[in-house]
Amino acid sequence: MATSKKARTHPPYELLYWPGIPGRGEFVRLAFEAACVSYKDTANEPGGPGAKAVVEVLSRDSLSSDGNPPVFAPPALRVPGEGKNGAPLVIYQTPAILSYLGDKLDLAGADEAEKAWIQAHALTALDLNNEAHDTHHPVAVSKYYDDQKEESLKKAADFRETRIPKFLSFFERILKANEAQGQGKFLVGAKLSYADTTLWNVLSGLQYAFPNELKARKKDYPLLFDTFYDNIAHTKGISEYLQSERRLPFGNGIFRHYPELDRP
Amino acid sequence: MATSKKARTHPPYELLYWPGIPGRGEFVRLAFEAACVSYKDTANEPGGPGAKAVVEVLSRDSLSSDGNPPVFAPPALRVPGEGKNGAPLVIYQTPAILSYLGDKLDLAGADEAEKAWIQAHALTALDLNNEAHDTHHPVAVSKYYDDQKEESLKKAADFRETRIPKFLSFFERILKANEAQGQGKFLVGAKLSYADTTLWNVLSGLQYAFPNELKARKKDYPLLFDTFYDNIAHTKGISEYLQSERRLPFGNGIFRHYPELDRP
Repeated sequence: MATSKKARTHPPYELLYWPGIPGRGEFVRLAFEAACVSYKDTANEPGGPGAKAVVEVLSRDSLSSDGNPPVFAPPALRVPGEGKNGAPLVIYQTPAILSYLGDKLDLAGADEAEKAWIQAHALTALDLNNEAHDTHHPVAVSKYYDDQKEESLKKAADFRETRIPKFLSFFERILKANEAQGQGKFLVGAKLSYADTTLWNVLSGLQYAFPNELKARKKDYPLLFDTFYDNIAHTKGISEYLQSERRLPFGNGIFRHYPELDRP
Repeated sequence: MATSKKARTHPPYELLYWPGIPGRGEFVRLAFEAACVSYKDTANEPGGPGAKAVVEVLSRDSLSSDGNPPVFAPPALRVPGEGKNGAPLVIYQTPAILSYLGDKLDLAGADEAEKAWIQAHALTALDLNNEAHDTHHPVAVSKYYDDQKEESLKKAADFRETRIPKFLSFFERILKANEAQGQGKFLVGAKLSYADTTLWNVLSGLQYAFPNELKARKKDYPLLFDTFYDNIAHTKGISEYLQSERRLPFGNGIFRHYPELDRP
């Protein structure tokens, strides 16, 4: 658990996610870490429930006694005392969790316009995240990579050749458009938002999964890779987190390094 | 344009989307129609700019003079007078537009918990929408279906056999969990939300694209297909819309009827 002087002024947020992988839980972790707000990483807590807490929230057939609906997939966020009639609140879907936490942690923008743009940019970064996942699972999520390797080679080639440059050039344009305020450091306004931390993690994952491709392309997006990426990594909270054991390594999750899917 | 007594109390909302197809613009249209609030469907207006308005908003390289950032993909929403310093506000990403409009049109829930659940359920319905799209474009969005037919047959089989039942049984559980308040008619609480209209449109599209598959499965989800689906279709605003020429037919967009991808 991150320790912070802010810890006692916030409810004890609990992240419910699969243990041992960054995955989509990482976007939620980064919001907490950037805000220097403590949280329980339930499945990864030493002596904690592990995957059991996740399985429990997924397997509910109906409204539990706390009034929350079932959850489609992790991550989920549990916030004691913030639900109906003082019960815990349980919400799911990464963008919905980020939108909720963004408001609470002051990472969601200064006004209604910024709030909408931050949400839109975070959703776009998450679309890129999902497309990266689909390069190794183009046919069926429930089947192994080895069972869809031929299709993966085709999907990854298209991802590298058309999708990566489309997304990266879009975000470079966003940074450029906001340069007067954001100095290339922030996507919206003059302040860190959950759109920044979300995009940062996707860029981090892409460099892990497609190192050759990203190395060849980085120079085309100077604001994105020089100014923005480095600035977020050195932000207070984030920089401490990245040096801690709480930052789980990429491995066999959304971002996977299969050399045959990368640029030769 | 939908006419309504509410028209003059709201700003002249403008939907920017490709002309002639329901697509992702449809989720935005349904929110307006359900709220009986008038809007400009820019590209489909007789004598209007057609696709030009969409291309314009996509091709901006930097902040336009109105202070809005570039847009990654349509749909986008333009709201005159609601942006920075009285400029128009332009936002993109379907879930971000729905979240913004949900608040304005009273389709976003009664409190913070309902708001988060409505957003999460709408995102889940949109995930199903995206997976339906990927059945005919599993390898590359930019290539023709005919160039990825072999992969599409595999992807569609998995979609029918594992993904459709996973999503439908989840939403049946949501309706069941909320039955005391929603009577099977609403996903959250006792009132229509943009999660309802969003899921409804996805179910409508699935029945167009995979008629045999849906016919065979409908009986397993009685709340979803008997109570919920029919109720939304008969909601004031929606029912008038569905009988109007404003409702564009499915065709060659996200939902496509390729018999070879359906259950034989």
